[in-house]
Parts: sequence; structure tokens; C-alpha cells
Amino acid sequence: MPREIERQYKEILKQYVMQQTEKNLYAGQNFSRQLIKKNVAPEEVISVHKAALEEMFPELQTEVLHSFDFLIEMMIRYGLAHSEHQSLLQHQK
Amino acid sequence: MPREIERQYKEILKQYVMQQTEKNLYAGQNFSRQLIKKNVAPEEVISVHKAALEEMFPELQTEVLHSFDFLIEMMIRYGLAHSEHQSLLQHQK
Repeated sequence: MPREIERQYKEILKQYVMQQTEKNLYAGQNFSRQLIKKNVAPEEVISVHKAALEEMFPELQTEVLHSFDFLIEMMIRYGLAHSEHQSLLQHQK
Repeated sequence: MPREIERQYKEILKQYVMQQTEKNLYAGQNFSRQLIKKNVAPEEVISVHKAALEEMFPELQTEVLHSFDFLIEMMIRYGLAHSEHQSLLQHQK
């Protein structure tokens, strides 16, 4: 994931975690479109999410962080399905 | 997500969170294939993951849980891309 996207993700997430307003949720929804457009894999999103939580909550239980590694493994499979979709679309052009 | 799948996810995750062995990771990787096969959307996985953490760590900061709602929003978009892929495949048959 490009550094700038990572920075933006952390910033938008932080806003949402502090205040669950419609506006902040909407910023997230808009941002998710960008992630897809830039071919960011879902496991990369989980990975940045984990890093963001580590920064925001330095006291977070190690077990919770381990659970993210598990979630990353889950999403790798979804990422494969997604990239398969992309190449199928390319192929059809 | 079917109740049985949800139960299994929580169990496999719990094992992994307790012990990050190759065996437990492998169980997770195998399980992710099942999730895809059963058309479980990625946002549903995040949702069950959140519920599992709430059960395992009742003291977990509310902010961390809010962050999962944000992640769910991210994954909804990936879920759409995935189901689009499914219907494309169906269409080609």
C-alpha cells in the first residue's frame, strides 16, 4: 500500500474511532472506493488497521494483535478472489 | 453467516490467539477456503471476528470495537467486488 494511502487510512480511522459521526463514516466509505481503485488488497487493509491500532493503543493486548494476523490470513484468500476478478475483467477487454 | 460456521470461526481463532503455531495457522488457512466456498462476505468475517474478540476480551476498549465497524465498512466494498466476480463467473458458464 502506498505510504500516502496508509497515512490517510490511519487519519480517517482515527477520526472515526474518536467520533462515530455520519460524516466520519461517510469519509471511510468514500475512502474504501479509493482503496479498491488503487488495487489495495484486503489483507493490506487489515495489516494497516492493525498498525493503526498499535499506534493508537500502545497498551493493547498482544492477543488482540495476534488475532489480526489470523484475520490477515482470512483476507488473503479474499484478496486472491478479487485479483482473479481483475484479471478476468482485463481478459474480457 | 451460518451459525455453525460462526462457531467454528470463533473456535479456530481462539486456538490461534492462544497459540500461534503452524498447525493453528494452517487450520485458519483451510477454514478461509470454506468461507469463500460458502459465499461468506468479507464484512461478515470482520463482524464475527469482532464478536469473537468481545467474547474473549470483555474488557476490550470500546474504541477498538468501534474500529471494527470502520473495517466492516471497508470490507463491504471488497465484498461487492467479490460478488460481482461470482456473477461474472456464473454468467460465463
